[in-house]
Amino acid sequence: MPNSFGHLFRITTWGESHGPGIGVVIDGCPPSLPITVEEIQAELDRRRPGQSDISTPRKEADVVEILSGVYEGKTTGTPIGLLVRNTDQRSSAYSEMKQAFRPSHADFTYQAKFGLRDPNGGGRSSARETIARVAAGALARKILALAYGVETRAYVTRVHDLAVPAGALPAFPTLAEVEATAVRCPHPETAAAMIARIKDVRSQGDSVGGVIECRIRNVPAGLGEPVFDRLEADLAKAMLSLPATKGFEIGSGFDGSLLKGSEHNDRFENRDGRVRTATNRSGGVQGGISNGEEIVFRVAFKPTATILQAQQTVDLAGQPTELMGKGRHDPCVVPRAVVIVEAMAALVLLDHAMRQNAQNRSFAFPV
Amino acid sequence: MPNSFGHLFRITTWGESHGPGIGVVIDGCPPSLPITVEEIQAELDRRRPGQSDISTPRKEADVVEILSGVYEGKTTGTPIGLLVRNTDQRSSAYSEMKQAFRPSHADFTYQAKFGLRDPNGGGRSSARETIARVAAGALARKILALAYGVETRAYVTRVHDLAVPAGALPAFPTLAEVEATAVRCPHPETAAAMIARIKDVRSQGDSVGGVIECRIRNVPAGLGEPVFDRLEADLAKAMLSLPATKGFEIGSGFDGSLLKGSEHNDRFENRDGRVRTATNRSGGVQGGISNGEEIVFRVAFKPTATILQAQQTVDLAGQPTELMGKGRHDPCVVPRAVVIVEAMAALVLLDHAMRQNAQNRSFAFPV
Amino acid sequence: MPNSFGHLFRITTWGESHGPGIGVVIDGCPPSLPITVEEIQAELDRRRPGQSDISTPRKEADVVEILSGVYEGKTTGTPIGLLVRNTDQRSSAYSEMKQAFRPSHADFTYQAKFGLRDPNGGGRSSARETIARVAAGALARKILALAYGVETRAYVTRVHDLAVPAGALPAFPTLAEVEATAVRCPHPETAAAMIARIKDVRSQGDSVGGVIECRIRNVPAGLGEPVFDRLEADLAKAMLSLPATKGFEIGSGFDGSLLKGSEHNDRFENRDGRVRTATNRSGGVQGGISNGEEIVFRVAFKPTATILQAQQTVDLAGQPTELMGKGRHDPCVVPRAVVIVEAMAALVLLDHAMRQNAQNRSFAFPV
Amino acid sequence: MPNSFGHLFRITTWGESHGPGIGVVIDGCPPSLPITVEEIQAELDRRRPGQSDISTPRKEADVVEILSGVYEGKTTGTPIGLLVRNTDQRSSAYSEMKQAFRPSHADFTYQAKFGLRDPNGGGRSSARETIARVAAGALARKILALAYGVETRAYVTRVHDLAVPAGALPAFPTLAEVEATAVRCPHPETAAAMIARIKDVRSQGDSVGGVIECRIRNVPAGLGEPVFDRLEADLAKAMLSLPATKGFEIGSGFDGSLLKGSEHNDRFENRDGRVRTATNRSGGVQGGISNGEEIVFRVAFKPTATILQAQQTVDLAGQPTELMGKGRHDPCVVPRAVVIVEAMAALVLLDHAMRQNAQNRSFAFPV
Repeated sequence: MPNSFGHLFRITTWGESHGPGIGVVIDGCPPSLPITVEEIQAELDRRRPGQSDISTPRKEADVVEILSGVYEGKTTGTPIGLLVRNTDQRSSAYSEMKQAFRPSHADFTYQAKFGLRDPNGGGRSSARETIARVAAGALARKILALAYGVETRAYVTRVHDLAVPAGALPAFPTLAEVEATAVRCPHPETAAAMIARIKDVRSQGDSVGGVIECRIRNVPAGLGEPVFDRLEADLAKAMLSLPATKGFEIGSGFDGSLLKGSEHNDRFENRDGRVRTATNRSGGVQGGISNGEEIVFRVAFKPTATILQAQQTVDLAGQPTELMGKGRHDPCVVPRAVVIVEAMAALVLLDHAMRQNAQNRSFAFPV
Repeated sequence: MPNSFGHLFRITTWGESHGPGIGVVIDGCPPSLPITVEEIQAELDRRRPGQSDISTPRKEADVVEILSGVYEGKTTGTPIGLLVRNTDQRSSAYSEMKQAFRPSHADFTYQAKFGLRDPNGGGRSSARETIARVAAGALARKILALAYGVETRAYVTRVHDLAVPAGALPAFPTLAEVEATAVRCPHPETAAAMIARIKDVRSQGDSVGGVIECRIRNVPAGLGEPVFDRLEADLAKAMLSLPATKGFEIGSGFDGSLLKGSEHNDRFENRDGRVRTATNRSGGVQGGISNGEEIVFRVAFKPTATILQAQQTVDLAGQPTELMGKGRHDPCVVPRAVVIVEAMAALVLLDHAMRQNAQNRSFAFPV
Repeated sequence: MPNSFGHLFRITTWGESHGPGIGVVIDGCPPSLPITVEEIQAELDRRRPGQSDISTPRKEADVVEILSGVYEGKTTGTPIGLLVRNTDQRSSAYSEMKQAFRPSHADFTYQAKFGLRDPNGGGRSSARETIARVAAGALARKILALAYGVETRAYVTRVHDLAVPAGALPAFPTLAEVEATAVRCPHPETAAAMIARIKDVRSQGDSVGGVIECRIRNVPAGLGEPVFDRLEADLAKAMLSLPATKGFEIGSGFDGSLLKGSEHNDRFENRDGRVRTATNRSGGVQGGISNGEEIVFRVAFKPTATILQAQQTVDLAGQPTELMGKGRHDPCVVPRAVVIVEAMAALVLLDHAMRQNAQNRSFAFPV
Repeated sequence: MPNSFGHLFRITTWGESHGPGIGVVIDGCPPSLPITVEEIQAELDRRRPGQSDISTPRKEADVVEILSGVYEGKTTGTPIGLLVRNTDQRSSAYSEMKQAFRPSHADFTYQAKFGLRDPNGGGRSSARETIARVAAGALARKILALAYGVETRAYVTRVHDLAVPAGALPAFPTLAEVEATAVRCPHPETAAAMIARIKDVRSQGDSVGGVIECRIRNVPAGLGEPVFDRLEADLAKAMLSLPATKGFEIGSGFDGSLLKGSEHNDRFENRDGRVRTATNRSGGVQGGISNGEEIVFRVAFKPTATILQAQQTVDLAGQPTELMGKGRHDPCVVPRAVVIVEAMAALVLLDHAMRQNAQNRSFAFPV
């Protein structure tokens, strides 16, 4: 189960950075969904390496193949197998890493857990695994869009200490606004500064982190479950399951605790004939369940662990050694992570939509 | 499944605030664990209402009964049923709430999801449900302590804008230091200010939120799974599944993204014959798996939604109305939530310890 | 998870034969189902001991209490906790069994698995655990009846070597026909012989087994999943999870393998404007999925292991000893097991109905 | 989840008969298991079509590729992706089946469930899906053999009405004895008659069914769980999840109900210093948990639904039509199903072994 996510729309991913490929099995996809390989490829193209001059120079076309579950352009309700072959592996770059643990990477913990590991490109711990999530997310997003008109928009709000000024963002940035710059920050001036910063730290062989914000609109009220499978709990898990993440907050988040209850509460009002909240400090979720307002959350990413500088570490025998970073890596992961955040958010929402349908819509008991 | 948590040490909770009681079934508890009802009761006593002059005046003894799974003082490996009867229900306090949605409560979303709801004390959305978690957590904590010497310590670091000064806390606060004040902040001066603040907002019929930090030591390296069931992902889900939480961060958290990779990386060293990290910005988890260092995370809680002030809202028919907060509530949830954070953290860790044992320790293949 | 059953309508049972009680948590029950404690009690009354002169003389009223999840006579969508207190425990009857393993009971295997066990009445291995299943099944049956008009009818077709003659049964026996005799065989002559046989073996301190057949009608086509969660696979698991069962067959069953394909195939025809099969050797399931015909299956039960005769066995130290059966037991379990078979069948069907709704009914994609 | 099996050693299968291929993801495989692609291929070769003159003439090499989870000849603990490309698809044989439902096939039920279906070769309902199970089973069998010396042996005991005479089989047939004939019946005379019968019915364009028995030895006592996840319940589900199965029985099975308790009970004795049963009517499982004796069960298979004769049926519009069987099919599935029964049995046992390890072996509490 560690490599599966979701209950009713369940994905199971597999594959290593430098193995034959990366893949995913999607189990539970509703039948009759029209889907083309191009629609999935389009999302992978937004994620793939080498797409701009601030991402890793690794060249991977990341071409996806549909192996099952689609017949004459529609899903059949049976599991959908997707495969992306790896093509640009350069394992020689990792020969030293076989013998020593890269700081703040998963090398040591994989060794401690499993007793052995595939050192090439980090093996299973590589962010290439997120290919599988983005591919599956493409289907989830399409279903949510067709069924409810749900739109999921993530974008970068901070890189290192360069943050979009308060209030400067559009209420719900368009995809074009996000994709306008390589850094995927919909505030052009800040985006320019971010790109310069990323190039600067890369020239030093260093890296930076940042923050992604995600907004989701047209979510029906009623998604999420009381108690453990709260919508924000599942979103938090989804986001903290991404490589390099260190924090998650929804709505008012950490700063919300600086307010008093009388300042923080979102009072209800009747707007356009619908129950709405006047403010949205809840971030679209109350009591673990969506209230129909925009879902808004933020995710913190640490600076990329791989840096092209010499670092002290220990080897397999526990002896001190020095390791010089190699390989091809993003100096800042947040621009490409935007796509992955959107995919994971869609996977969470669709799973809850299906759970809600299973329990509630199906049975209408006469009073 | 929405009311179950964990895979191998799985708890299923049930019960409403003003129903007959609250309970939990613990499935998967290893056999032969010596356990007494007093050990479980002790944790419940730390959580129960009315324990200090800054918590709710609701009087509940919260007496736990063991209904199954324990024979002659030891667990038998069969499911452990625990029951806490409710005794101090005053449903009359909630008659108005039947007709209107309390702002920032779960009233509206439960109505939207289920089409009906038990309004008394919030029904299932009440924080009384966490009784079940604390009771189950008592067993998890004992197992972790016996098996590995794991210690879990949560404490309050901020109430409203009153935060413990940087560097002022002991490295690993003792239980006595935490329990020394009603607010469970192990920094006496800050604790005194926090208590004064809570009393002050209560006198205004208002509420405040805060931040809890949790440290866990003696965690073996190797717990957590690659990809989805990362240790920090499961901790994040556990924490965001608590009522009133708005954020989670581990190790360097949101501020970690302000550092460069060269500043953030935890280099490895050999200390006392063991691979250790010189710093702990990772918060004890790398690549989703524990590295043997202290696990450190923080959780943000919003101000209590119930305030004793008149608030605008709408009624079941969608018409504007005014609601005056009633009932007995904590003006600040963080002091009592400390116990719940510890319980949830223990549940996550034990589940992962059992998963690790299932997969790895059991099978030693000859090379 | 070992004590949970079902995915979307999930029950978790707990309790031992001679502990404080037996209970169940039902998670996932659709909201707004009108339900009374009397409706659940009625099913328990059909199962309870001491109901006739061919069942155990143990006297248990088996009074059920609803602890949560129901508000003003309707389910709320939150977990339903049900509790039945044990009242007639006589642990003294089991003092010898503490030291020795009863043949063909679970004493030895529980000891081997857990390293300790509750010997009183078999502890968790007692068939009293099925109280929990029958209680949960009462809700499942009501939902299936309201939503689809599903009827589930089990009855005894064989006791020892006394079988209902071929073709002698009504096409779909009525509940009254089944309940007409204590042995729950709807063929009066055979029933009389069965009752005589049971009394006869009981007078010898011996026991007998038998076969139960179950028919379910008005099942919508489309329930069940390809591959692993086939409807017959889940029914087989459900039935083999009952104490004392040794076999399961659906439709033509073991004898079906005596036919050629040309004799066995159920050809399709258009009957009353609906696709029907002319015969039903499939037993209502094809390719793992219901086809709308009657579901028909049979379950084999071994003779009760407890007999009031001296038997050779070994003690905890592995030394040979003799054990004289004590306690109060049914000389034949099948009459009371009829109720449990119906409950389990309903739990399987409802879970699949909810899964089907989650995946298919909810999303209607425009072509 | 419908396409996943197992909790801790979990397989997820995908693929259609005439799609690009069939595959499986194995999640939870313990690390450091030495495994070669040849070991997996060897089991697939036992299953593949065209292996003898009594199986389907479809020619498929069924060459397996390891896509992930194995590094330098050992499992890494990360998910193992296996892929078998389809090569001999002849979809033209299925053009008529697009428009009409083949009797006793899954055509109608898939259409009813999903609203559309891939008609080529039965799509997902094809027995080619079992390739994935056999490949995963190869790993499970190796782990069980290395860890416990478990041996799993299935063989054919009946084809149509030709059964091995009572008492004529070796106590535990060797693999060589099973593989000696194309029909995999370890009784040569009966095997010869079975082969003749299969050829005879094939010449009539007809088909036959049969019974497979499976014996498993060296199973440690203690595997299986009380209540729902009984070992026999999970075996029953595993077997009934195979295409064309109609029944399952363990130990004394259906005939066990013909005995009295005094005849049926397996008394315990001390043999070779170990607690053993003198007889094995329990079939190696008591109270749902293995007792260390041989596990013995039987599975009934119906005659192959596809026959090369004209059959009455209805078309998609519900109109009567006649369908002439086409395609290449086994006239009797049991010889090849032997391999699949062994694979599924191993998957069940290994999963329970890991569950047992998770709960019990890991934690040794000092008294």
